[in-house]
Amino acid sequence: MNDALKTAYQNLKETTPLTHCLTNTVVQPLTANVLLAAGAAPAMVEMPEEAAVLASVANAVLINLGTINHPQVEGIRAAAAAAQESGTPWVMDPVAIGALPVRTALAKELLANKPTAVRGNASEIMALAGGEGGRGVDSTNSVDDATAVARELAREHGCVVAVSGPVDYITDGKRAITCANGDELLTLITGAGCSLGALVAAYCGANEDKLVATATAHAVVGVAAQMAAARCEGPGSFQVHWLDALSQVDGDVLAKEAKVEWVEQ
Amino acid sequence: MNDALKTAYQNLKETTPLTHCLTNTVVQPLTANVLLAAGAAPAMVEMPEEAAVLASVANAVLINLGTINHPQVEGIRAAAAAAQESGTPWVMDPVAIGALPVRTALAKELLANKPTAVRGNASEIMALAGGEGGRGVDSTNSVDDATAVARELAREHGCVVAVSGPVDYITDGKRAITCANGDELLTLITGAGCSLGALVAAYCGANEDKLVATATAHAVVGVAAQMAAARCEGPGSFQVHWLDALSQVDGDVLAKEAKVEWVEQ
Amino acid sequence: MNDALKTAYQNLKETTPLTHCLTNTVVQPLTANVLLAAGAAPAMVEMPEEAAVLASVANAVLINLGTINHPQVEGIRAAAAAAQESGTPWVMDPVAIGALPVRTALAKELLANKPTAVRGNASEIMALAGGEGGRGVDSTNSVDDATAVARELAREHGCVVAVSGPVDYITDGKRAITCANGDELLTLITGAGCSLGALVAAYCGANEDKLVATATAHAVVGVAAQMAAARCEGPGSFQVHWLDALSQVDGDVLAKEAKVEWVEQ
Repeated sequence: MNDALKTAYQNLKETTPLTHCLTNTVVQPLTANVLLAAGAAPAMVEMPEEAAVLASVANAVLINLGTINHPQVEGIRAAAAAAQESGTPWVMDPVAIGALPVRTALAKELLANKPTAVRGNASEIMALAGGEGGRGVDSTNSVDDATAVARELAREHGCVVAVSGPVDYITDGKRAITCANGDELLTLITGAGCSLGALVAAYCGANEDKLVATATAHAVVGVAAQMAAARCEGPGSFQVHWLDALSQVDGDVLAKEAKVEWVEQ
Repeated sequence: MNDALKTAYQNLKETTPLTHCLTNTVVQPLTANVLLAAGAAPAMVEMPEEAAVLASVANAVLINLGTINHPQVEGIRAAAAAAQESGTPWVMDPVAIGALPVRTALAKELLANKPTAVRGNASEIMALAGGEGGRGVDSTNSVDDATAVARELAREHGCVVAVSGPVDYITDGKRAITCANGDELLTLITGAGCSLGALVAAYCGANEDKLVATATAHAVVGVAAQMAAARCEGPGSFQVHWLDALSQVDGDVLAKEAKVEWVEQ
Repeated sequence: MNDALKTAYQNLKETTPLTHCLTNTVVQPLTANVLLAAGAAPAMVEMPEEAAVLASVANAVLINLGTINHPQVEGIRAAAAAAQESGTPWVMDPVAIGALPVRTALAKELLANKPTAVRGNASEIMALAGGEGGRGVDSTNSVDDATAVARELAREHGCVVAVSGPVDYITDGKRAITCANGDELLTLITGAGCSLGALVAAYCGANEDKLVATATAHAVVGVAAQMAAARCEGPGSFQVHWLDALSQVDGDVLAKEAKVEWVEQ
């Protein structure tokens, strides 16, 4: 397995995938810095007329629903449609759906544009299948609660579904992978999960096997978090060391440190 | 007094108040990170249809006028109305009012929704009562210039009014507290005052005595700033250490280091 | 030459220019922190009714097209018109023009409002004269490719044109300066170029000679980057040290470390 991660990493480094992010304003700076540190090229364009153009030529698109407003929703629709039409891999991060009405309906609507992958916490993934959602951006369900739903969503929509948590569960409906890397400090900075979604897009843009690509993004984020946790004194310095570590995690580090396994469906 | 701060701190830690922020885009990342480091749970939702829903179920709401635009103003109005109706404590931060026309009128309009607290610098608080405002986001008045106006505003609107500065002045119209913690480096990073406003909301969401809650937020920010100033080499590392320190300031540190006093009205 | 930089630096420190930025949401926090660290006073206001007011009284205005949307475009037009009318120096940063249609037309339209300076990478400057643009926010041309176009643009529009790259080229059509300071790590964090644009505005707001002002901003950013690169372990700590260094670069450091030269047109 870890050889596959190493190859996926090398594919990203050789491609420097142009990753077009329509994401929430809270996490835009961190997301761009995570992509740069990890070897991708971020671009953030939201005006519908321009978002469609960029989504057609980018290597990957991320759509994150965290701070949607009416103008952005039009940009998101345009980018998702353009990505589908042009065959650009695209990832949906359905932030805080369930409790909030507009984004819940929008996330379900966007499934029609055939996302390559969907990444969320357990409550968000369950809400995509009709559940109630979590508390704000926090999950009120465990990853285990969501695995069956994730498999069904993946089969129904032909996409990868990633449930992030202490042990991540990633499935394409036929195969499944768990990733046990990471550190609790990731929950004490804003935007770690959202940045992971962007990195999933970047890896999908650089790799054919979208399940392995998604798992690699999770492993990179988690291994770097472990390195940062060992060096930091709190959430402020954790974020700094995490960005440093993201630029230091290469294929060899990944092959050695990743706790990624194939699991029975 | 410092025992009261310690209790207010413990109430926040036990509640992890869901703090709904409608704030300016410049400071969103820092605000979310400050709330997380200090023990609260941030969420940022602005679309009117969703902002009203979240403001009704959140523990506290912050409304900060720093980068208003037409769509956001509708979200702000919806959130303030929903907070008032549902009894959610909410805080207004009237950034740069006085010189700029739209936000000045909006801040005065929002007083009708009965904010729990208003936090600003001296020029902003004076502008709320008809003064001219400062220079951009900087105050051109001293805290002392604004104490009488703050008391009157607090009495007229039944809210806490906090005037932030080298020595903060916080009043509910009947009682008043000063806080002498802090460091000048807070003025060399963007968003320190705005993040303080969010922390005032979080503390108000976790405590009955809103005056003490507001003072505790000021003390936490100021004590952490002093710890960071002793460790840093400039504004970049100050921000990093400040976030670390915000996660380290607990009730005992606060009881020992806070320079908070009751003062005559 | 370096004495001129020292004087330009001192003029900024004595003025603390109020620098009104209409910029993209990805880089707002870093831009504000760069301005603060370097001695300027940032303010970010975009609603058209307010942007025109602030642009009239500010010392300088930055207009950066990175994440334009329909409401922001109106704010940008209002601010550019108000800056022109009131004589406030203003800088345009035409991010990612060429490939993206709306911003390309907007950048050309805004030239009618007589910018004081235009700053971009080589592909962006060439796109302003009709070229195709780069890949996302990255230049696909070298600085040398753009020098002739930069001179022509400067002559035609009576402004300074700065082409940023490993060796920056800065011209007002009659005179030209190169700046060889900087570090490649600037390309591994988001917003370094955009923050430089804001600092160009601040220096133009504090100095009569706009060509020297623009060169000084480039030198300050580059010298601070070299100091940070010597101390950091990756892009996360580079950004922290860079902000610290920006507050440490003074006239003497600049006079000693700047690699700035007059060159033949």
